[in-house]
Amino acid sequence: MRRGRFITIEGIDGAGKSSHIAALAHWIRQQQREVVLTREPGGTRLAESVRELFLHRDDMDALTEALLVFAGRRDHLRQVIEPALARGAVVVCDRFTDATFAYQGAGRGFELQVLSQLEHWVQEGRQPDLTLWFDLPAEVAAARRGAARDADRLERETEDFFERVRDGYAARAAQAPQRFVRINAERPREAVWQQVEAALVAHSWW
Amino acid sequence: MRRGRFITIEGIDGAGKSSHIAALAHWIRQQQREVVLTREPGGTRLAESVRELFLHRDDMDALTEALLVFAGRRDHLRQVIEPALARGAVVVCDRFTDATFAYQGAGRGFELQVLSQLEHWVQEGRQPDLTLWFDLPAEVAAARRGAARDADRLERETEDFFERVRDGYAARAAQAPQRFVRINAERPREAVWQQVEAALVAHSWW
Repeated sequence: MRRGRFITIEGIDGAGKSSHIAALAHWIRQQQREVVLTREPGGTRLAESVRELFLHRDDMDALTEALLVFAGRRDHLRQVIEPALARGAVVVCDRFTDATFAYQGAGRGFELQVLSQLEHWVQEGRQPDLTLWFDLPAEVAAARRGAARDADRLERETEDFFERVRDGYAARAAQAPQRFVRINAERPREAVWQQVEAALVAHSWW
Repeated sequence: MRRGRFITIEGIDGAGKSSHIAALAHWIRQQQREVVLTREPGGTRLAESVRELFLHRDDMDALTEALLVFAGRRDHLRQVIEPALARGAVVVCDRFTDATFAYQGAGRGFELQVLSQLEHWVQEGRQPDLTLWFDLPAEVAAARRGAARDADRLERETEDFFERVRDGYAARAAQAPQRFVRINAERPREAVWQQVEAALVAHSWW
């Protein structure tokens, strides 16, 4: 049996990652691999409940948020991600712990040391095998998000906030260069896909 | 303005604490003090959602549970307990962090060191001014619980479990003797109330 692989997709809101996830899953299935598509926060009944609380609460402080996110993550890992990896599937997860460091840590200024401790407890060493980071300036992302999407709490945050989040992703990428691949998400859709495909082809997993 | 006071009520299921809480609140109101009655897990909309998840999930691991409980506690402290204490009220809370150490820690064998770290982050030094610990042997509590109550997850646990929880409460009491008062909950109802009243009278808060 081939080893399971854990791929995470990261980037600020408006980076266009969602539109490439279906194509990514299709590409992996063509390699005769089972794909499990999931997302964070979410992925289990418990974690989806956490997601609901998380997106529509303005009066939650950063620590409450971090504890909820990692509780949902623990459940998600135990119920979905680890069993899928154990049976040799490729798990594609829309956002994971890098997003917590970028959004709660760099974006909201929450203590990175607390996040690191939670990551250590919850993941017990589990890290993605590959992280595709859809990167672009916050200003471009803001224009793309436009007014069409529902305004939830995160969407209402300012461009400054998203620039800090971007810096947070850059810091995580610098700490784990072996798994991070930066995708220039400012380029046209087809050129973005070519970078994604190149990152997949570069691995001898298939 | 008189200082706010934080009273917690602890004990294993079947210890009879619920039946004394209303009398306790009545007694405190007679001292011309505002009383805020609350409970854990619970006390805010977020924390009540956590309570729901917590009571009816069999497949949640101890770490997920601990993170959820402390997330709910943080919200409860920020939204309910601290504002009430700040305006001089007496907060009476049905279970608090001692219950987490007793149930998750001693009862389920979850690492006390992780719970201590979470307690430190979430409470930032806040501790109850008085903890009334309704103590009795697990065997007597089991007989009292009988079959009348809805069987949720905690209720289905064994007598052995409750004996470990009792030991967990004893350990917490030994660590904080200045705030813990052991109530012998094996005695008849009126005798239990006399002990509660004596513990209240012993303080010069009124």
